[in-house]
Amino acid sequence: MSQSFDIAVVGATGTVGETLVQILEERSFPVADLHLLASSESAGHSVPFRGKNVRVREVDEFDFSKVKLVFFAAGPAVTLSFASKASSAGCAIIDLSGALPAGQAPQIVPEANAQVLAGLEKPIQVSSPSPSATALAVVLAPLRGVLDIQRVNVTACLAVSAQGREAVSELARQTAELLNLRPLESTFFDRQMAFNLLAQVGKPDAQGHVPLEKRLVTELRQLLGMPALKVSVTCIQAPVFFGDSFSVSLQLAAPVDLAAVNAALEAGDSIELVEAGDYPTAVGDAVGQDVVYVGRVRQGVDDASELNLWLASDNVRKGAALNAVQLAELLIKDQL
Amino acid sequence: MSQSFDIAVVGATGTVGETLVQILEERSFPVADLHLLASSESAGHSVPFRGKNVRVREVDEFDFSKVKLVFFAAGPAVTLSFASKASSAGCAIIDLSGALPAGQAPQIVPEANAQVLAGLEKPIQVSSPSPSATALAVVLAPLRGVLDIQRVNVTACLAVSAQGREAVSELARQTAELLNLRPLESTFFDRQMAFNLLAQVGKPDAQGHVPLEKRLVTELRQLLGMPALKVSVTCIQAPVFFGDSFSVSLQLAAPVDLAAVNAALEAGDSIELVEAGDYPTAVGDAVGQDVVYVGRVRQGVDDASELNLWLASDNVRKGAALNAVQLAELLIKDQL
Repeated sequence: MSQSFDIAVVGATGTVGETLVQILEERSFPVADLHLLASSESAGHSVPFRGKNVRVREVDEFDFSKVKLVFFAAGPAVTLSFASKASSAGCAIIDLSGALPAGQAPQIVPEANAQVLAGLEKPIQVSSPSPSATALAVVLAPLRGVLDIQRVNVTACLAVSAQGREAVSELARQTAELLNLRPLESTFFDRQMAFNLLAQVGKPDAQGHVPLEKRLVTELRQLLGMPALKVSVTCIQAPVFFGDSFSVSLQLAAPVDLAAVNAALEAGDSIELVEAGDYPTAVGDAVGQDVVYVGRVRQGVDDASELNLWLASDNVRKGAALNAVQLAELLIKDQL
Repeated sequence: MSQSFDIAVVGATGTVGETLVQILEERSFPVADLHLLASSESAGHSVPFRGKNVRVREVDEFDFSKVKLVFFAAGPAVTLSFASKASSAGCAIIDLSGALPAGQAPQIVPEANAQVLAGLEKPIQVSSPSPSATALAVVLAPLRGVLDIQRVNVTACLAVSAQGREAVSELARQTAELLNLRPLESTFFDRQMAFNLLAQVGKPDAQGHVPLEKRLVTELRQLLGMPALKVSVTCIQAPVFFGDSFSVSLQLAAPVDLAAVNAALEAGDSIELVEAGDYPTAVGDAVGQDVVYVGRVRQGVDDASELNLWLASDNVRKGAALNAVQLAELLIKDQL
């Protein structure tokens, strides 16, 4: 009865790729052969899977007709180079790089818009959105039913791990330098990251918007099925290794019924609502978890039509790798 | 011609008190005799002023009739105990503790509402607002003239120094413990502060609001003279020693004229506007400075009636001590 699938992971040596392989094992995803792929610099490494070390091979030598499903956890350039090859070979594609346009590979977060899958033509191409959009969509999805949301204001405080291993090392190194009163070196970040907050993540365009912020607005609207939703967003870089935090303020068409909000969050998939008065943190709660934590649920100080929330989510796991595996779990039900 | 004044500083051994004494010296404030006061635990210490070490004495033994002006940089309890005694002795009072009600000691930020001073009865009692309200008022004051501001959304990312020396030590100690893989101890903060963000500063009431957030809403309206302004605020604790950062999104009645905004900010007092594309940070720019830094001035991603800003300000200096000294400079012009 139970079928298993040959699968490839492109970008298997990155933070997200490694976590993805680990989650495939944890959730007993029905993998027959697992092919781990990367660009030539990373090929040759190996990644543990089901008690064995799987060798990472060069993506440009891979015959995609060997597999049914490919995860693209590499950078946008690698994804753009190989996605059409994989699709032509008949593979279903789950893109985590953000490189494929929404018209070609719609963004899906199962807790928010799983229904989009049903309308797609084969071979399927879908995208796992940015970690910020994923976390926000998980939490806002169940609130669509109880609130008339007019505007979402978000300050997303992002962990350095979203920028890869070099960023993680630099935060650790800078911190040690400062504590030991040694001169500070900045090579990855353009200024001191330790004990500091950076006001933008990436390079702004002429209007001052960074790609991540524009992407978040577009993705959130699509995930929630609310094309006219106003989204105000600032993405800042926090001196945190793993786990994103979100300060969220919603403006509503009418005064908020807090009991209904709490009930919707309690009932929502992949949400852990902490007790009133308490709050979750990225490091203490969210990291390593499969849920998005929510706390500080409250009205405005004197605006009953304002709902404030604080979210904490594991950017690598729930925000990226796990969402991609959840998408794969839906695909194998009836679309592979 | 030039007159000088006998002055007392209550809470002279705290972070703000010490900085205040240093600023009195830097700005050549016309001090005749300087009396440094503190509660019995801190009395006996000394603080440098004009090349001498000034001994800190017990506040409850002090004869306030000796001075013309008293700064209260102590905690709210000490301020409440001694403010009326000081006022009865005819002293002007500048409160930095937030303890005195606005009806008794109105909050003033010279760049925003200096005109309030003229209407006060002697002996004068004024308050220097919370560091967050001060920084926001400095920047929003010149924008009142060019924008019809309907709502201010703020996520204030606060430095641990606002909580005093114990908080600063704990962040340093926790960070060293984590880098050295030693077990983490939390005594001041209720959880891991290093490499983490805490979603609230202080204890929330039954509605989920913390005192600092309620205070910021009230103070900002008063400072800007906009009693109906909607203010949505979340104050979070960042793993930063000194310097607050603010992610600010304004909703306006009409599309924003960015050129007019930039011109107003350029012309505003105590504001340093960084170049488009760049942004200031708390640690790299604001700390030790007399101005509030502003960057990331931009419209919404697709809402021309939204104005976004990023602010960085020295919470101890510009947010508190310097504002109090600026108030004193106004007072001595014609009200002492």
